[in-house]
Amino acid sequence: MTTPLAVKIAREYGTPCAVIDMERVERNIARIQAVCDAAGVANRPHIKTHKSPVLARLQIAAGAKGITCQKLGEAEVMANAGIDDILISYNLIGEEKMARLGALQAKANMTVAADNSTVIAGLPQAATASGRPLSVVVECDTGRKRAGVETPAEAIALAREIAASKGLLFAGFMLYPTETGWAEAQKFYDQALAGVRAHGLDAAIVSTGGTPNLKNVGKLKGATEHRPGTYIYNDRMQVAAGVANWDDCALNIYSTVVSRAGPDRGILDAGSKTLTSDTGGLEGHGLILEHPEAKIARFAEEHGFLDLTRSNTRPNVGDVVRIVPNHVCVVVNMMDEVVMVRGEEIVGTLSVAARGKLR
Amino acid sequence: MTTPLAVKIAREYGTPCAVIDMERVERNIARIQAVCDAAGVANRPHIKTHKSPVLARLQIAAGAKGITCQKLGEAEVMANAGIDDILISYNLIGEEKMARLGALQAKANMTVAADNSTVIAGLPQAATASGRPLSVVVECDTGRKRAGVETPAEAIALAREIAASKGLLFAGFMLYPTETGWAEAQKFYDQALAGVRAHGLDAAIVSTGGTPNLKNVGKLKGATEHRPGTYIYNDRMQVAAGVANWDDCALNIYSTVVSRAGPDRGILDAGSKTLTSDTGGLEGHGLILEHPEAKIARFAEEHGFLDLTRSNTRPNVGDVVRIVPNHVCVVVNMMDEVVMVRGEEIVGTLSVAARGKLR
Repeated sequence: MTTPLAVKIAREYGTPCAVIDMERVERNIARIQAVCDAAGVANRPHIKTHKSPVLARLQIAAGAKGITCQKLGEAEVMANAGIDDILISYNLIGEEKMARLGALQAKANMTVAADNSTVIAGLPQAATASGRPLSVVVECDTGRKRAGVETPAEAIALAREIAASKGLLFAGFMLYPTETGWAEAQKFYDQALAGVRAHGLDAAIVSTGGTPNLKNVGKLKGATEHRPGTYIYNDRMQVAAGVANWDDCALNIYSTVVSRAGPDRGILDAGSKTLTSDTGGLEGHGLILEHPEAKIARFAEEHGFLDLTRSNTRPNVGDVVRIVPNHVCVVVNMMDEVVMVRGEEIVGTLSVAARGKLR
Repeated sequence: MTTPLAVKIAREYGTPCAVIDMERVERNIARIQAVCDAAGVANRPHIKTHKSPVLARLQIAAGAKGITCQKLGEAEVMANAGIDDILISYNLIGEEKMARLGALQAKANMTVAADNSTVIAGLPQAATASGRPLSVVVECDTGRKRAGVETPAEAIALAREIAASKGLLFAGFMLYPTETGWAEAQKFYDQALAGVRAHGLDAAIVSTGGTPNLKNVGKLKGATEHRPGTYIYNDRMQVAAGVANWDDCALNIYSTVVSRAGPDRGILDAGSKTLTSDTGGLEGHGLILEHPEAKIARFAEEHGFLDLTRSNTRPNVGDVVRIVPNHVCVVVNMMDEVVMVRGEEIVGTLSVAARGKLR
């Protein structure tokens, strides 16, 4: 069973093809902006999900204060498109990156994160090159064991290092609480804030993160902004996290069944080079809307292995199916463009302008 | 500990950065060409690994008969670069793909694979558009349970369908034996060959595949060519398979330690958007040459989580390390360019010209 839109997509673009429904994209943007507004927290969406200046401008037009990027290559694309309030939520190290950051800071208001002295020691090079102060937030680990200082004492020490560094402004704290770790994050933040205030500093920016955390946004007393990324498209992980419904999933991979290879098996033309091997901790590699009981069991690079043993409906070779990915952020990163639709109408293509850049 | 070359790479390009050593690339190309020559089997390298017409031409200059591609987007880039003998080892379905295949066939000698009647029914559209016959091989499943017909009888029936189709030539059989399944593949092939000969057909192309199978190349009596891909760069999987040594691994990801985040932990700037979540069935996500006992335990999109508990040597923040990926084919697919070196000298960048195309 192939939908009329899938027939059109396959005829005009071929498969596999990423298709975004702009009605759902705009609804997701408006819904989450309203959630942040209601919580009294500024929205600073993370563009690592869509990597498109066009969509970033839609988010800002809807009320976002600015954007979040994870690397310089993303921020450069966004700044060149005229976006002027950018947080790079990452430790940036090295002369090459400092030169690029300095050039960015000359054209946009940049804030960067730091969780160690080596990063802080390098940042003045960028500030000096730009000719104006650079805002730096201290990244705090509030339970994820990713980057971030592990104690309020370290956060306070780094805040003082930043404030004492030529051309740097201590701007505040960046946190990424786990979904259940907001009380712990509050305790960490309260101690860190008291500590910096005792040294005559203050936190203008207190940033929390994550689309699954949208159910907690505003819970951190003192938070000034939130960094949700995935909400613009959503995916199986967000539905599993309870922050989106299937109707909120705005991106589908359209894929053709290219072989049946046995009665209980099938092969999709979407493999690990389209859907990626990132399962997001879920069973199977995506939900097939036409065959929800079929399992995308494993991948070759350009083959998706369908297990149809539990599926009452079985696709034919040539059928085009729609897949909701497990983790949409890494899927969008695989392609140079996506196709935009509104309901059943094809609008055209959208460049994933900030992809293909490792750094 | 950062090598002098790593210092130069970080300063000129920044990290994460994919670096290929052209001395190793050329040595790998020559070594595997010699293996195929000695086995009396033509070499038709699969370009899905490097996606570069420059490297494909090096393979042909070294003696390769032609190339293998997995999708039209790859074949279009290669044909536009003047490569004129291309096998697309994949079931191609749909009007959009047939139009593109027809245009390709007008400028290069194309061979495509088919494992079902739906695919065969579509191919005459491409042949007609190109104005000359299109060669089609029947894909046979000899143990991988991927695509491919499951019995010699099906292979024979499809060969006859191809031969009876306007503009199509039955060219032979495409097999991808498992490393231990060559006797099974021989049995399958012998029956299929006898069957087509009984109907006045013959197999001009009998193609086997896989870099791990280079230890078996020539074992299939009647094989005419082999499709190795990964051998040009090699990776942890090929070392584990016993077909490459660490010195044969020509591509490293150079990555900076951006946070230590605790004494037994560290964070690399290479995450799932650089090294991918494809483990290739191995433990950990790559070998760090400077710290072989350190484990890349898991990923965020731009963070590699280092587990240093078993490592006697521990990197400092700012160190640049070299990583041998588990599965190099999917890593190269993440980036628009790689940096070429010769030993300790930087040569320049090489475009991964056929990437970013889903189809």
